[in-house]
Amino acid sequence: MSVKNILNEKGNLVYTVLIDQKINDAIEVLNSHNIGVVVVVDKDNRIKGILSERDIIRKMEDHSASIYVAPVKSCMTADPLTCTKDATIDEVMNIMTKYKIRHLPVIEENRLAGLISIGDIVKRKIEITEQEASALRDYIAG
Amino acid sequence: MSVKNILNEKGNLVYTVLIDQKINDAIEVLNSHNIGVVVVVDKDNRIKGILSERDIIRKMEDHSASIYVAPVKSCMTADPLTCTKDATIDEVMNIMTKYKIRHLPVIEENRLAGLISIGDIVKRKIEITEQEASALRDYIAG
Repeated sequence: MSVKNILNEKGNLVYTVLIDQKINDAIEVLNSHNIGVVVVVDKDNRIKGILSERDIIRKMEDHSASIYVAPVKSCMTADPLTCTKDATIDEVMNIMTKYKIRHLPVIEENRLAGLISIGDIVKRKIEITEQEASALRDYIAG
Repeated sequence: MSVKNILNEKGNLVYTVLIDQKINDAIEVLNSHNIGVVVVVDKDNRIKGILSERDIIRKMEDHSASIYVAPVKSCMTADPLTCTKDATIDEVMNIMTKYKIRHLPVIEENRLAGLISIGDIVKRKIEITEQEASALRDYIAG
C-alpha cells in the first residue's frame, strides 16, 4: 500500500497558511478545523514549512504577548521532510520513526498534494497486519 | 498485555502541574520535557484534569495576552477518563478511539500512577499482531 492509496481514501485536502501570515491566522485555522498542524505555503502552493501546535507552544517560552502577531515564518519548521505519492507505508513509517515527526506533506510536481499523518499510517499498518494474520489462520484452518 | 505491563516497560513517571498553577507553569513543563500533555493534580496527587498543547491553543482563540497567567483550571479538561493497571491494550485502544483521546491517566487507589499514550498502545498493538503473524507463518512452514 502506498501514499497514493491513502490519499485516495482520505482525500487530499490540506489546511494551509501563507508564508506571510501571522500566528493568529494559524491558530484560527487550527482551531476552526480541530487539527494539530498546518502546512505553510507560498502563493504558488509550494511548501515553505510546517507549523504545529507544539511549535507555537515552544515559542511561548518567553511569555511574549506578541506571539499572536509573530510571523508564521518565525515559528514553523522550514523546509520539512516530504514524500511522494509512490512512497510505501513502511517507508513513511520509517521516516516518521527515525525523525520523530508525525506529519509528512506529499509533493507532486513541486506542489503540495496531500498530508499523511502518523495516525493514517498506524491505522493501515494495524489493518494490514491483522488481515495477514487472519488469512494465515484461515489457511491453517482450511 | 495490560497497562501494568506497559508501565513496567516505560516507567510510571508522569509530568504534572498543581491545580492552582498557571498556564505559563504548564508551558514550562511541556517545553522543558518536550511533551504534549501534563496531568493536573491536587497536592495529594489526585487527578483533577489533563492539559494538552491543544487545550492551550484552543484557549488562544481570543488573542488574549493574559493567556500566560490564566489558571490551568480554565484550560484543562476536568475529570478526564482514566484507567486502572488491569486494563488491557484493547480496552484502552477502544476508549481512545471512541472518545478520540490520546492520553489516559492510570489510577491506583485514587492516586495518579502512570500515563498511557496512544503511541504506547499502537506500538504494542503492531508488535503483538506482527508476532502473531510471524508465529502463524512459522507454524505453516514447519
